[in-house]
Amino acid sequence: MSSAGIRRLVYSGCWRGQLGTSLAGSRSRTLSLAAATMDQRVISLDNMNPHVKKMEYAVRGPLVIRATALEKELQAGVSKPFKTVTKANIGDAHAMGQKPITFLRQVVSLCLMPSLMDDPSIPSDAKARARGILDGCKGSSLGSYSDSAGIEIIRHHVAQYIAKRDGFPSNWEDIILCAGASEGIRGIMKMMIKHDNSIKPGVMIPIPQYPLYSATIAEFDLHQIGYYLNESTNWGLDISELERAYEEAKEVSSPKILVVINPGNPTGNVLSEKNIQGIVKFAHEKNLFLFADEVYQDNVYAEGCKFHSFKKVIMEMGAPYDTMELASFMSCSKGYMGECGLRGGYAELINVDPQVKAMYLKSISAKLCPTTLGQAVMECVVNPPQEGEPSYDQFMEEKNEVLSSLALRAKMIVETFNSVPGMSCNIVQGAMYAFPQIMLPERAIEAAKAAGQAPDVFYAFQLLENTGICIIPGSGFGQRPGTYHFRTTILPQPEMLKTMLEKFREFHKNFIKLYE
Amino acid sequence: MSSAGIRRLVYSGCWRGQLGTSLAGSRSRTLSLAAATMDQRVISLDNMNPHVKKMEYAVRGPLVIRATALEKELQAGVSKPFKTVTKANIGDAHAMGQKPITFLRQVVSLCLMPSLMDDPSIPSDAKARARGILDGCKGSSLGSYSDSAGIEIIRHHVAQYIAKRDGFPSNWEDIILCAGASEGIRGIMKMMIKHDNSIKPGVMIPIPQYPLYSATIAEFDLHQIGYYLNESTNWGLDISELERAYEEAKEVSSPKILVVINPGNPTGNVLSEKNIQGIVKFAHEKNLFLFADEVYQDNVYAEGCKFHSFKKVIMEMGAPYDTMELASFMSCSKGYMGECGLRGGYAELINVDPQVKAMYLKSISAKLCPTTLGQAVMECVVNPPQEGEPSYDQFMEEKNEVLSSLALRAKMIVETFNSVPGMSCNIVQGAMYAFPQIMLPERAIEAAKAAGQAPDVFYAFQLLENTGICIIPGSGFGQRPGTYHFRTTILPQPEMLKTMLEKFREFHKNFIKLYE
Repeated sequence: MSSAGIRRLVYSGCWRGQLGTSLAGSRSRTLSLAAATMDQRVISLDNMNPHVKKMEYAVRGPLVIRATALEKELQAGVSKPFKTVTKANIGDAHAMGQKPITFLRQVVSLCLMPSLMDDPSIPSDAKARARGILDGCKGSSLGSYSDSAGIEIIRHHVAQYIAKRDGFPSNWEDIILCAGASEGIRGIMKMMIKHDNSIKPGVMIPIPQYPLYSATIAEFDLHQIGYYLNESTNWGLDISELERAYEEAKEVSSPKILVVINPGNPTGNVLSEKNIQGIVKFAHEKNLFLFADEVYQDNVYAEGCKFHSFKKVIMEMGAPYDTMELASFMSCSKGYMGECGLRGGYAELINVDPQVKAMYLKSISAKLCPTTLGQAVMECVVNPPQEGEPSYDQFMEEKNEVLSSLALRAKMIVETFNSVPGMSCNIVQGAMYAFPQIMLPERAIEAAKAAGQAPDVFYAFQLLENTGICIIPGSGFGQRPGTYHFRTTILPQPEMLKTMLEKFREFHKNFIKLYE
Repeated sequence: MSSAGIRRLVYSGCWRGQLGTSLAGSRSRTLSLAAATMDQRVISLDNMNPHVKKMEYAVRGPLVIRATALEKELQAGVSKPFKTVTKANIGDAHAMGQKPITFLRQVVSLCLMPSLMDDPSIPSDAKARARGILDGCKGSSLGSYSDSAGIEIIRHHVAQYIAKRDGFPSNWEDIILCAGASEGIRGIMKMMIKHDNSIKPGVMIPIPQYPLYSATIAEFDLHQIGYYLNESTNWGLDISELERAYEEAKEVSSPKILVVINPGNPTGNVLSEKNIQGIVKFAHEKNLFLFADEVYQDNVYAEGCKFHSFKKVIMEMGAPYDTMELASFMSCSKGYMGECGLRGGYAELINVDPQVKAMYLKSISAKLCPTTLGQAVMECVVNPPQEGEPSYDQFMEEKNEVLSSLALRAKMIVETFNSVPGMSCNIVQGAMYAFPQIMLPERAIEAAKAAGQAPDVFYAFQLLENTGICIIPGSGFGQRPGTYHFRTTILPQPEMLKTMLEKFREFHKNFIKLYE
């Protein structure tokens, strides 16, 4: 089978289980036979890791592969009904034109090229930060390995940042730097893997969720326990729904972890303190390890909303909650920084069994260390210019500009979608996404079925082929059966976003007209 | 149990299975009981991933933890029989004082701070490389995510580098950029994991080996098949030994992968072309997937030795060998660059089933992308200054200086160890390590037993406590039963290495005297 053939299969297959179920099912028999006549490969689809086959990651799935192919076709001069592809599929701010924070880039450049210390145009506070980082590196070079848990001085600064944020102490030895939050989340979840036939450890995740979770659960052969977020209360988290999901799952798994994404991806919901208290009480009652995905902690836009960390809430609640196991994750990819490619992040491991922590540290030691540059970026995030320092004004201006523009775009997107007949969109209180619901006519659902696609996937492919806009269908994140959604980022710059929304509205109108 | 207690346990426990077997064995019952009376943790040593418990990674194990603690004690003014700790445990050139390559650091700094394009002191070829990289990034920023397999233009350049090196074409779509070679090796080995009770896939690895392999095999619950390298032929690789190991293992596992490290870590052996041909024929006959760990391809010192890539050899051998599955790994951490902390590397996947490759690409997509900065470093490695370009002379001077100094140090270390009674050391033909054998007196072996340590671990701890020199005992890499070795890097700068070797010789003399 040619690689072009594979690609065709990838994006023409039905969405859910596109490469997993469909290839593992009837189609794979034909393919395997073809492969067998071709040669006898050591690793084949038939004998490879079945859990890798099963895992899915919609944010980089078939639609995105098709969007990239369309970009190449456009470059090659192929005529399309659009001139550019707009990738609203992934929370990638710089890809959408956001500019880097000057201070941050100065610090990391100084770390890589210390001769810049003599450059009078670079402010002294950036130089001081860079010197501090290099002093923490072996041989004063970012080119040396750091400890597997990260450069010690940066771990101290992360702990200070958390302590200042929450008003409760943070122990630097609880801080594990990692190459983006994903690495931390996967690494800690890995501690739960079983290779025997005992009951599977269960991981409770929101539906809709960020597909890193479902992909990791599938790969690690854990049991996914979805709890639905409440669309009618702006994607609120109901404790009664946690109860329902837990009760249903405990027959077939041993629930161990409760994942909460706050601010929510893809929902944009920001949890109230009271809601978090309820979640904590539930987790305590059921003896669950809390995973707080808090990578959007700087991205809160809606009036009256505020970010409350799980760490702060359990500490304020006091005994017995303040000794609960909790892992909180942060990243330099989101917030106002948007430094996705540089791969920086941290996990704070609170109240974790010291022996388990020692095992975790051993397990990451075989990966040597997270990128030191990503660590240096995290230093800038947790130790930004302070009032009175030379970089302060420019830093605050750049930071506020990004965040206020994101707040405006969050509003613009919600207003537009809510003005389109057949669409409804909750308020984007935080994070970087909207997750609107679309009402699809019966005939569109039938057309999707005929095309072998889920209805929301069909819709998303039609949108892409007709307008060049790449969004991700709701089924990639999970949604209540019979409802259809999509996730779009709010990241295109204001002018581009305006154009995108106009094209989107026009497409939707035509799509509905066609199938009504 | 206090974390200080844990640390004590970590470095006082016996070497093999220090955190795994010993805690899982009799000791763990006491610990678990203590923990159980303390609290009921969701994740404990009793219910966590058993394979993470089993894995070991000697290069960052108890000796290194103790060495770091000693450094802190020295800083705090504690009196020791030495003034500095010499970490010869890990191939970390910059930590040992090696200076970064100017061109490389200029290019990556330009990528992070494009305003440096106006700096007249930075040469135009560095600027051109940086521009090329940024043009390949979404939004022209290293801060955007790249494709999971890496920035396309860099993948093209890697393929060109390989084609030029080998004289055979390389397909850029076979190139997967990764955060250091380790990530690639682990990612591809992951494709073999089974979660059922069927016979375990077997992975043939050299003994002694680089412990990433044993750690990954343990974590992934694969079957380790060790084949001994031949110490009497300068750590040569005998096909008859491959046969023996294979025959022995095929009863209890299904051998799938043959790992070869060339140049060898920890042995320093460089394989001849003829030897590689023999290995290829063996792998073909047994239907094995070849893993060629070629991260030291630039580190060849001995006269008459030359690096031959497995790719080139199978292509030259022609049918049926040129369609064998082969993965070759490269890194920016070694060679003359030594950029360990920046985490750059690539895997070339040759003749891999396209469907399996598609699955691999899907599996890495959930990790988003390897650090873009590490990718930019790899661009410099595969696309260095060419003759006639402004950076060429300085680049070649820096590169040659590092490599010729390493060659000198390789010789110095071998000569010294061979001049010490009771030590013998093979020629370091390549890579960054020596792996000498030490003859331990019977009474030293008894003393080790009394201390609950393997003899070579006992020796290494004594060396560390008395001289501050941190090496890794041979048991961390594997050795024939009854023989004792250690691995030391050749990386301390010449003056420091001279001092280290003098102290080492003195220690060894006293150690032998004490126990003879």
